[in-house]
Amino acid sequence: MTLRLLLLSNSTEHGKGYLDHAMPAVLDFLGPVRQLLFVPFALRDRDAYTARVRSRFAKEGIDVRGVRPEGSEAAVVEAAEALFVGGGNTFRLLDTLQRTGLLEALRRRARRGVPYLGASAGTNVAAPTIKTTNDMPIVQPASFAALDLVPFQINPHYVDPDPSSRHMGETREERLREFLEDNDAVVVALREGAWLRVEGRRATLGGSRGARIFRRGRDPEEVSPGAALDALLTD
Amino acid sequence: MTLRLLLLSNSTEHGKGYLDHAMPAVLDFLGPVRQLLFVPFALRDRDAYTARVRSRFAKEGIDVRGVRPEGSEAAVVEAAEALFVGGGNTFRLLDTLQRTGLLEALRRRARRGVPYLGASAGTNVAAPTIKTTNDMPIVQPASFAALDLVPFQINPHYVDPDPSSRHMGETREERLREFLEDNDAVVVALREGAWLRVEGRRATLGGSRGARIFRRGRDPEEVSPGAALDALLTD
Repeated sequence: MTLRLLLLSNSTEHGKGYLDHAMPAVLDFLGPVRQLLFVPFALRDRDAYTARVRSRFAKEGIDVRGVRPEGSEAAVVEAAEALFVGGGNTFRLLDTLQRTGLLEALRRRARRGVPYLGASAGTNVAAPTIKTTNDMPIVQPASFAALDLVPFQINPHYVDPDPSSRHMGETREERLREFLEDNDAVVVALREGAWLRVEGRRATLGGSRGARIFRRGRDPEEVSPGAALDALLTD
Repeated sequence: MTLRLLLLSNSTEHGKGYLDHAMPAVLDFLGPVRQLLFVPFALRDRDAYTARVRSRFAKEGIDVRGVRPEGSEAAVVEAAEALFVGGGNTFRLLDTLQRTGLLEALRRRARRGVPYLGASAGTNVAAPTIKTTNDMPIVQPASFAALDLVPFQINPHYVDPDPSSRHMGETREERLREFLEDNDAVVVALREGAWLRVEGRRATLGGSRGARIFRRGRDPEEVSPGAALDALLTD
Protein backbone atom coordinates (compact mmCIF):
# COMPACT_ATOMS: atom_id res chain seq x y z
CA MET A 1 0.00 0.00 0.00
CA THR A 2 3.07 2.25 -0.12
CA LEU A 3 3.32 4.51 -3.15
CA ARG A 4 6.51 3.79 -5.12
CA LEU A 5 7.40 6.13 -7.98
CA LEU A 6 10.52 6.96 -9.98
CA LEU A 7 9.81 9.96 -12.21
CA LEU A 8 12.54 10.83 -14.69
CA SER A 9 12.73 14.21 -16.41
CA ASN A 10 14.10 12.62 -19.59
CA SER A 11 14.75 9.12 -20.91
CA THR A 12 17.95 9.97 -22.78
CA GLU A 13 20.84 12.24 -21.92
CA HIS A 14 22.73 14.03 -24.67
CA GLY A 15 25.46 11.75 -26.05
CA LYS A 16 24.32 8.67 -24.14
CA GLY A 17 22.16 5.66 -24.95
CA TYR A 18 18.50 5.25 -24.03
CA LEU A 19 18.04 5.34 -20.22
CA ASP A 20 21.79 4.90 -19.64
CA HIS A 21 22.14 7.99 -17.42
CA ALA A 22 19.44 6.77 -15.02
CA MET A 23 19.81 2.98 -15.16
CA PRO A 24 21.57 2.56 -11.79
CA ALA A 25 18.72 4.47 -10.13
CA VAL A 26 16.12 2.51 -12.11
CA LEU A 27 17.62 -0.83 -11.03
CA ASP A 28 17.88 0.30 -7.43
CA PHE A 29 14.22 1.35 -7.57
CA LEU A 30 13.00 -1.88 -9.19
CA GLY A 31 14.95 -4.09 -6.78
CA PRO A 32 13.94 -7.73 -7.31
CA VAL A 33 11.50 -6.96 -10.16
CA ARG A 34 12.22 -9.07 -13.26
CA GLN A 35 9.11 -8.19 -15.34
CA LEU A 36 8.18 -4.70 -16.46
CA LEU A 37 4.89 -3.75 -18.12
CA PHE A 38 5.57 -0.98 -20.65
CA VAL A 39 3.03 1.64 -21.82
CA PRO A 40 4.19 2.83 -25.28
CA PHE A 41 1.21 5.10 -26.11
CA ALA A 42 3.16 8.38 -26.28
CA LEU A 43 4.78 7.39 -29.60
CA ARG A 44 2.94 6.51 -32.79
CA ASP A 45 4.89 3.32 -33.53
CA ARG A 46 4.14 1.40 -30.36
CA ASP A 47 5.69 -1.87 -31.49
CA ALA A 48 9.04 -0.31 -32.38
CA TYR A 49 9.00 1.61 -29.12
CA THR A 50 8.31 -1.52 -27.08
CA ALA A 51 11.07 -3.39 -28.92
CA ARG A 52 13.56 -0.63 -28.06
CA VAL A 53 12.64 -0.70 -24.39
CA ARG A 54 12.69 -4.51 -24.31
CA SER A 55 16.16 -4.61 -25.79
CA ARG A 56 17.46 -2.01 -23.28
CA PHE A 57 16.10 -3.86 -20.26
CA ALA A 58 17.18 -7.26 -21.60
CA LYS A 59 20.76 -6.11 -20.88
CA GLU A 60 19.74 -5.82 -17.23
CA GLY A 61 18.02 -9.21 -17.12
CA ILE A 62 14.54 -7.63 -16.98
CA ASP A 63 11.78 -8.81 -19.29
CA VAL A 64 9.49 -6.20 -20.90
CA ARG A 65 5.97 -6.67 -22.15
CA GLY A 66 4.12 -3.87 -24.01
CA VAL A 67 0.51 -2.94 -23.30
CA ARG A 68 -1.88 -2.72 -26.26
CA PRO A 69 -4.36 0.19 -26.44
CA GLU A 70 -7.40 -1.92 -25.60
CA GLY A 71 -9.68 -1.96 -22.60
CA SER A 72 -9.18 -5.71 -22.27
CA GLU A 73 -5.59 -5.00 -21.29
CA ALA A 74 -6.76 -3.77 -17.88
CA ALA A 75 -6.29 -7.36 -16.70
CA VAL A 76 -2.66 -7.20 -17.84
CA VAL A 77 -2.15 -3.99 -15.90
CA GLU A 78 -3.84 -5.60 -12.91
CA ALA A 79 -1.32 -8.47 -12.96
CA ALA A 80 1.80 -6.35 -13.54
CA GLU A 81 4.81 -6.59 -11.26
CA ALA A 82 5.98 -3.07 -12.19
CA LEU A 83 4.89 -0.32 -14.61
CA PHE A 84 6.88 1.87 -17.01
CA VAL A 85 5.20 4.71 -18.91
CA GLY A 86 7.53 5.99 -21.63
CA GLY A 87 8.02 9.48 -23.09
CA GLY A 88 6.78 11.03 -26.31
CA ASN A 89 3.70 13.21 -26.74
CA THR A 90 1.78 13.73 -23.49
CA PHE A 91 -1.55 14.56 -25.18
CA ARG A 92 -1.45 11.40 -27.29
CA LEU A 93 -0.51 9.34 -24.22
CA LEU A 94 -3.28 10.72 -22.02
CA ASP A 95 -5.88 10.53 -24.79
CA THR A 96 -5.10 6.83 -25.33
CA LEU A 97 -5.13 6.09 -21.59
CA GLN A 98 -8.52 7.80 -21.28
CA ARG A 99 -10.10 6.15 -24.32
CA THR A 100 -9.05 2.67 -23.26
CA GLY A 101 -9.91 3.07 -19.59
CA LEU A 102 -6.32 2.10 -18.77
CA LEU A 103 -5.85 5.41 -16.93
CA GLU A 104 -8.00 4.09 -14.08
CA ALA A 105 -6.26 0.70 -14.14
CA LEU A 106 -2.80 2.29 -13.91
CA ARG A 107 -3.90 4.68 -11.18
CA ARG A 108 -5.37 1.87 -9.10
CA ARG A 109 -2.26 -0.31 -9.39
CA ALA A 110 0.19 2.52 -8.71
CA ARG A 111 -1.81 3.63 -5.67
CA ARG A 112 -1.64 0.06 -4.35
CA GLY A 113 2.16 0.24 -4.37
CA VAL A 114 3.09 -1.35 -7.70
CA PRO A 115 6.36 0.37 -8.72
CA TYR A 116 5.69 3.09 -11.31
CA LEU A 117 8.54 4.28 -13.52
CA GLY A 118 7.85 7.31 -15.72
CA ALA A 119 9.98 9.26 -18.19
CA SER A 120 9.10 12.67 -19.66
CA ALA A 121 5.44 12.29 -20.81
CA GLY A 122 5.19 9.30 -18.45
CA THR A 123 6.28 11.63 -15.65
CA ASN A 124 3.82 14.36 -16.70
CA VAL A 125 0.85 11.99 -16.41
CA ALA A 126 1.79 11.03 -12.84
CA ALA A 127 0.73 14.57 -11.80
CA PRO A 128 -2.88 15.68 -11.19
CA THR A 129 -3.10 17.18 -14.71
CA ILE A 130 -1.01 17.56 -17.87
CA LYS A 131 -1.24 21.36 -17.69
CA THR A 132 2.54 21.69 -17.25
CA THR A 133 3.64 19.54 -20.18
CA ASN A 134 5.90 21.07 -22.85
CA ASP A 135 4.28 19.06 -25.61
CA MET A 136 2.28 20.20 -28.62
CA PRO A 137 -1.48 19.51 -28.27
CA ILE A 138 -1.64 17.31 -31.39
CA VAL A 139 -4.72 15.41 -30.17
CA GLN A 140 -7.45 16.57 -27.80
CA PRO A 141 -7.96 14.36 -24.75
CA ALA A 142 -11.43 14.43 -23.15
CA SER A 143 -9.83 15.90 -20.03
CA PHE A 144 -6.43 17.19 -18.90
CA ALA A 145 -6.88 15.19 -15.66
CA ALA A 146 -4.14 12.56 -15.32
CA LEU A 147 -3.07 9.86 -12.84
CA ASP A 148 -2.89 12.17 -9.82
CA LEU A 149 -0.29 10.05 -8.02
CA VAL A 150 1.41 13.09 -6.47
CA PRO A 151 -0.29 16.29 -5.26
CA PHE A 152 1.90 18.64 -7.34
CA GLN A 153 2.47 19.38 -11.02
CA ILE A 154 5.68 18.35 -12.76
CA ASN A 155 7.51 20.08 -15.61
CA PRO A 156 10.09 17.73 -17.17
CA HIS A 157 12.97 18.80 -19.45
CA TYR A 158 13.13 22.08 -17.53
CA VAL A 159 15.46 24.59 -19.20
CA ASP A 160 16.76 27.73 -17.56
CA PRO A 161 16.28 31.02 -19.43
CA ASP A 162 19.08 31.60 -21.96
CA PRO A 163 20.19 35.25 -21.71
CA SER A 164 21.85 35.07 -25.13
CA SER A 165 18.68 33.96 -26.93
CA ARG A 166 17.09 36.28 -29.48
CA HIS A 167 13.95 34.13 -29.70
CA MET A 168 10.87 35.96 -28.44
CA GLY A 169 8.70 32.95 -27.55
CA GLU A 170 8.09 32.59 -23.79
CA THR A 171 10.87 31.05 -21.67
CA ARG A 172 9.94 27.98 -19.61
CA GLU A 173 9.91 30.13 -16.50
CA GLU A 174 7.46 32.55 -18.13
CA ARG A 175 5.22 29.64 -19.13
CA LEU A 176 5.18 28.28 -15.59
CA ARG A 177 4.41 31.73 -14.19
CA GLU A 178 1.47 31.90 -16.62
CA PHE A 179 0.34 28.50 -15.31
CA LEU A 180 0.43 29.88 -11.74
CA GLU A 181 -1.63 32.92 -12.75
CA ASP A 182 -4.50 30.58 -13.57
CA ASN A 183 -3.78 27.66 -11.16
CA ASP A 184 -2.81 27.70 -7.48
CA ALA A 185 -0.59 24.61 -7.45
CA VAL A 186 3.02 23.64 -6.78
CA VAL A 187 5.17 22.82 -9.83
CA VAL A 188 8.35 20.73 -9.58
CA ALA A 189 10.45 21.61 -12.62
CA LEU A 190 13.01 18.84 -13.23
CA ARG A 191 16.05 19.72 -15.31
CA GLU A 192 17.24 17.04 -17.71
CA GLY A 193 19.27 14.48 -15.76
CA ALA A 194 17.11 14.91 -12.65
CA TRP A 195 14.44 12.60 -11.23
CA LEU A 196 12.12 12.31 -8.30
CA ARG A 197 11.82 9.16 -6.22
CA VAL A 198 8.78 8.68 -4.01
CA GLU A 199 8.56 5.93 -1.38
CA GLY A 200 5.41 6.30 0.66
CA ARG A 201 5.68 9.64 2.44
CA ARG A 202 9.26 10.29 1.39
CA ALA A 203 10.26 12.10 -1.78
CA THR A 204 13.89 12.58 -2.83
CA LEU A 205 15.41 14.49 -5.72
CA GLY A 206 17.91 12.33 -7.57
CA GLY A 207 20.24 12.56 -10.53
CA SER A 208 22.23 15.58 -11.58
CA ARG A 209 21.53 19.28 -12.19
CA GLY A 210 18.68 19.72 -9.69
CA ALA A 211 15.21 21.16 -9.90
CA ARG A 212 13.28 24.37 -9.35
CA ILE A 213 10.03 24.55 -7.43
CA PHE A 214 7.48 27.14 -8.53
CA ARG A 215 4.69 28.38 -6.26
CA ARG A 216 2.18 31.18 -6.79
CA GLY A 217 3.37 34.51 -5.42
CA ARG A 218 6.87 33.28 -4.51
CA ASP A 219 10.26 33.26 -6.19
CA PRO A 220 11.21 29.85 -7.61
CA GLU A 221 13.11 27.69 -5.11
CA GLU A 222 16.32 25.98 -6.25
CA VAL A 223 16.65 22.37 -5.06
CA SER A 224 19.88 20.34 -5.22
CA PRO A 225 20.29 16.64 -6.00
CA GLY A 226 19.75 14.54 -2.88
CA ALA A 227 17.30 16.98 -1.29
CA ALA A 228 14.37 15.58 0.68
CA LEU A 229 11.08 16.89 -0.68
CA ASP A 230 8.72 15.03 1.67
CA ALA A 231 6.84 18.24 2.48
CA LEU A 232 5.57 18.42 -1.10
CA LEU A 233 3.63 15.18 -0.59
CA THR A 234 1.49 16.69 2.15
CA ASP A 235 1.15 20.26 0.80
CA MET B 1 -17.27 39.60 -48.24
CA THR B 2 -13.55 39.26 -49.00
CA LEU B 3 -11.49 37.67 -46.26
CA ARG B 4 -8.78 40.07 -45.01
CA LEU B 5 -6.18 38.72 -42.60
CA LEU B 6 -2.73 39.74 -41.41
CA LEU B 7 -1.25 36.96 -39.29
CA LEU B 8 2.02 37.80 -37.54
CA SER B 9 4.32 35.11 -36.15
CA ASN B 10 5.35 37.39 -33.26
CA SER B 11 4.38 40.79 -31.91
CA THR B 12 7.89 41.84 -30.87
CA GLU B 13 11.25 41.36 -32.54
CA HIS B 14 14.37 40.99 -30.40
CA GLY B 15 15.75 44.43 -29.54
CA LYS B 16 12.79 46.35 -30.94
CA GLY B 17 9.63 47.83 -29.45
CA TYR B 18 6.18 46.23 -29.47
CA LEU B 19 4.97 45.66 -33.08
CA ASP B 20 7.72 47.94 -34.47
CA HIS B 21 9.10 45.35 -36.89
CA ALA B 22 5.69 44.86 -38.53
CA MET B 23 4.05 48.28 -38.22
CA PRO B 24 4.52 49.34 -41.88
CA ALA B 25 2.78 46.12 -42.96
CA VAL B 26 0.07 46.57 -40.31
CA LEU B 27 -0.67 50.13 -41.49
CA ASP B 28 -0.69 49.08 -45.13
CA PHE B 29 -3.12 46.29 -44.23
CA LEU B 30 -5.43 48.52 -42.17
CA GLY B 31 -5.50 51.28 -44.81
CA PRO B 32 -8.12 53.89 -43.83
CA VAL B 33 -9.07 52.15 -40.56
CA ARG B 34 -8.85 54.51 -37.55
CA GLN B 35 -10.50 52.30 -34.88
CA LEU B 36 -9.21 48.89 -33.81
CA LEU B 37 -11.05 46.49 -31.51
CA PHE B 38 -8.47 44.64 -29.40
CA VAL B 39 -8.94 41.17 -27.87
CA PRO B 40 -6.58 40.96 -24.83
CA PHE B 41 -7.68 37.54 -23.51
CA ALA B 42 -4.32 35.76 -24.00
CA LEU B 43 -2.75 37.66 -21.09
CA ARG B 44 -3.99 37.66 -17.51
CA ASP B 45 -3.87 41.44 -17.02
CA ARG B 46 -6.20 42.48 -19.81
CA ASP B 47 -6.35 46.17 -18.84
CA ALA B 48 -2.57 46.62 -18.83
CA TYR B 49 -2.37 44.74 -22.13
CA THR B 50 -5.01 46.94 -23.74
CA ALA B 51 -3.28 50.07 -22.46
CA ARG B 52 0.00 48.96 -24.04
CA VAL B 53 -1.64 48.30 -27.39
CA ARG B 54 -3.59 51.56 -27.23
CA SER B 55 -0.43 53.54 -26.57
CA ARG B 56 1.41 51.85 -29.46
CA PHE B 57 -1.36 52.52 -31.98
CA ALA B 58 -1.92 56.08 -30.70
CA LYS B 59 1.46 56.89 -32.30
CA GLU B 60 -0.07 55.89 -35.63
CA GLY B 61 -3.26 57.87 -35.11
CA ILE B 62 -5.34 54.72 -34.56
CA ASP B 63 -7.71 54.44 -31.61
CA VAL B 64 -7.89 51.14 -29.70
CA ARG B 65 -10.75 49.78 -27.63
CA GLY B 66 -10.39 46.56 -25.61
CA VAL B 67 -13.06 43.86 -25.55
CA ARG B 68 -14.21 42.61 -22.14
CA PRO B 69 -14.73 38.85 -21.60
CA GLU B 70 -18.51 39.04 -21.56
CA GLY B 71 -21.10 37.69 -23.96
CA SER B 72 -22.71 41.13 -24.13
CA GLU B 73 -19.60 42.31 -25.95
CA ALA B 74 -20.73 40.45 -29.08
CA ALA B 75 -22.45 43.68 -30.10
CA VAL B 76 -19.12 45.49 -29.83
CA VAL B 77 -17.48 42.88 -32.05
CA GLU B 78 -20.39 43.21 -34.47
CA ALA B 79 -19.79 46.95 -34.80
CA ALA B 80 -15.98 46.80 -35.08
CA GLU B 81 -14.15 48.41 -37.99
CA ALA B 82 -11.14 46.09 -37.57
CA LEU B 83 -10.07 43.35 -35.15
CA PHE B 84 -6.75 42.65 -33.42
CA VAL B 85 -6.23 39.48 -31.38
CA GLY B 86 -3.02 39.76 -29.37
CA GLY B 87 -0.48 37.15 -28.29
CA GLY B 88 0.02 35.37 -24.97
CA ASN B 89 -1.28 31.95 -23.98
CA THR B 90 -3.34 30.31 -26.74
CA PHE B 91 -5.27 27.98 -24.38
CA ARG B 92 -6.34 30.87 -22.15
CA LEU B 93 -7.31 32.91 -25.22
CA LEU B 94 -9.39 30.16 -26.82
CA ASP B 95 -11.01 29.16 -23.53
CA THR B 96 -12.15 32.74 -22.93
CA LEU B 97 -13.43 33.12 -26.50
CA GLN B 98 -15.40 29.87 -26.15
CA ARG B 99 -16.87 30.67 -22.71
CA THR B 100 -18.06 34.12 -23.76
CA GLY B 101 -19.39 33.09 -27.17
CA LEU B 102 -17.13 35.72 -28.72
CA LEU B 103 -15.45 33.03 -30.82
CA GLU B 104 -18.54 32.85 -33.02
CA ALA B 105 -18.86 36.66 -33.14
CA LEU B 106 -15.23 37.07 -34.24
CA ARG B 107 -15.52 34.29 -36.82
CA ARG B 108 -18.66 35.80 -38.32
CA ARG B 109 -17.17 39.28 -38.60
CA ALA B 110 -13.83 38.10 -40.00
CA ARG B 111 -15.60 35.93 -42.58
CA ARG B 112 -17.60 38.98 -43.67
CA GLY B 113 -14.38 40.80 -44.52
CA VAL B 114 -13.68 42.84 -41.40
CA PRO B 115 -9.85 43.13 -41.26
CA TYR B 116 -8.39 40.63 -38.77
CA LEU B 117 -4.92 41.23 -37.35
CA GLY B 118 -3.43 38.44 -35.27
CA ALA B 119 -0.10 38.02 -33.47
CA SER B 120 1.26 34.76 -32.07
CA ALA B 121 -1.68 33.26 -30.09
CA GLY B 122 -3.97 35.52 -32.14
CA THR B 123 -2.51 33.93 -35.26
CA ASN B 124 -2.88 30.40 -33.84
CA VAL B 125 -6.62 30.86 -33.29
CA ALA B 126 -7.16 31.93 -36.91
CA ALA B 127 -6.44 28.30 -37.91
CA PRO B 128 -8.98 25.43 -37.76
CA THR B 129 -7.57 24.27 -34.39
CA ILE B 130 -4.93 25.24 -31.83
CA LYS B 131 -3.20 21.86 -32.19
CA THR B 132 -0.01 23.50 -33.50
CA THR B 133 0.45 26.09 -30.75
CA ASN B 134 3.71 26.14 -28.78
CA ASP B 135 1.98 27.20 -25.59
CA MET B 136 1.59 25.39 -22.30
CA PRO B 137 -1.94 24.00 -21.73
CA ILE B 138 -2.50 26.00 -18.53
CA VAL B 139 -6.29 25.92 -18.90
CA GLN B 140 -8.49 23.37 -20.64
CA PRO B 141 -10.75 24.80 -23.34
CA ALA B 142 -13.94 22.84 -24.11
CA SER B 143 -12.57 22.21 -27.60
CA PHE B 144 -9.35 22.79 -29.55
CA ALA B 145 -11.50 24.06 -32.48
CA ALA B 146 -10.69 27.70 -33.25
CA LEU B 147 -11.77 30.41 -35.73
CA ASP B 148 -11.13 28.33 -38.86
CA LEU B 149 -10.49 31.38 -41.06
CA VAL B 150 -7.86 29.57 -43.14
CA PRO B 151 -7.88 25.88 -44.15
CA PHE B 152 -4.39 25.14 -42.79
CA GLN B 153 -2.69 25.05 -39.39
CA ILE B 154 -0.17 27.70 -38.35
CA ASN B 155 2.87 27.36 -36.11
CA PRO B 156 4.13 30.80 -35.04
CA HIS B 157 7.58 31.52 -33.56
CA TYR B 158 8.99 28.68 -35.68
CA VAL B 159 12.59 27.85 -34.75
CA ASP B 160 14.92 25.74 -36.86
CA PRO B 161 16.65 22.81 -35.14
CA ASP B 162 19.83 23.92 -33.36
CA PRO B 163 22.59 21.37 -34.10
CA SER B 164 24.65 22.60 -31.12
CA SER B 165 21.87 22.02 -28.59
CA ARG B 166 22.34 19.39 -25.90
CA HIS B 167 18.69 19.62 -24.82
CA MET B 168 16.79 16.38 -25.46
CA GLY B 169 13.25 17.78 -25.65
CA GLU B 170 11.72 17.51 -29.14
CA THR B 171 12.72 20.13 -31.73
CA ARG B 172 9.90 22.11 -33.30
CA GLU B 173 10.28 20.07 -36.47
CA GLU B 174 9.88 16.85 -34.47
CA ARG B 175 6.75 18.24 -32.80
CA LEU B 176 5.20 19.15 -36.15
CA ARG B 177 6.04 15.71 -37.55
CA GLU B 178 4.26 14.20 -34.54
CA PHE B 179 1.26 16.42 -35.33
CA LEU B 180 1.23 15.08 -38.91
CA GLU B 181 1.34 11.48 -37.66
CA ASP B 182 -2.07 12.05 -36.05
CA ASN B 183 -3.52 14.75 -38.36
CA ASP B 184 -3.54 14.98 -42.17
CA ALA B 185 -3.33 18.77 -42.50
CA VAL B 186 -0.99 21.42 -43.91
CA VAL B 187 1.05 23.43 -41.38
CA VAL B 188 2.52 26.83 -42.22
CA ALA B 189 5.41 27.38 -39.79
CA LEU B 190 6.22 31.11 -39.61
CA ARG B 191 9.66 32.07 -38.36
CA GLU B 192 9.80 35.13 -36.10
CA GLY B 193 9.72 38.23 -38.30
CA ALA B 194 7.44 36.56 -40.85
CA TRP B 195 3.72 37.05 -41.46
CA LEU B 196 0.97 35.91 -43.76
CA ARG B 197 -1.38 38.31 -45.50
CA VAL B 198 -4.64 37.00 -46.94
CA GLU B 199 -6.84 39.06 -49.25
CA GLY B 200 -9.72 36.98 -50.55
CA ARG B 201 -8.17 34.16 -52.57
CA ARG B 202 -4.65 35.53 -52.37
CA ALA B 203 -2.15 34.71 -49.66
CA THR B 204 1.32 36.25 -49.50
CA LEU B 205 4.23 35.59 -47.16
CA GLY B 206 5.60 38.87 -45.79
CA GLY B 207 8.31 40.05 -43.45
CA SER B 208 11.75 38.56 -43.11
CA ARG B 209 13.22 35.06 -42.60
CA GLY B 210 10.51 33.08 -44.40
CA ALA B 211 8.47 30.05 -43.51
CA ARG B 212 8.41 26.28 -43.80
CA ILE B 213 5.39 24.32 -44.93
CA PHE B 214 4.88 20.86 -43.45
CA ARG B 215 2.71 18.21 -45.11
CA ARG B 216 2.21 14.56 -44.21
CA GLY B 217 4.60 12.25 -46.03
CA ARG B 218 6.64 15.05 -47.63
CA ASP B 219 9.81 16.92 -46.77
CA PRO B 220 9.14 20.42 -45.38
CA GLU B 221 9.03 23.08 -48.10
CA GLU B 222 11.05 26.28 -47.62
CA VAL B 223 9.19 29.46 -48.61
CA SER B 224 10.83 32.87 -49.06
CA PRO B 225 9.41 36.30 -48.15
CA GLY B 226 7.18 37.62 -50.92
CA ALA B 227 6.06 34.17 -52.06
CA ALA B 228 2.46 33.71 -53.23
CA LEU B 229 0.73 30.97 -51.24
CA ASP B 230 -2.71 31.17 -52.86
CA ALA B 231 -2.79 27.41 -53.42
CA LEU B 232 -2.91 26.84 -49.65
CA LEU B 233 -6.31 28.55 -49.51
CA THR B 234 -7.92 25.99 -51.79
CA ASP B 235 -6.02 22.87 -50.65
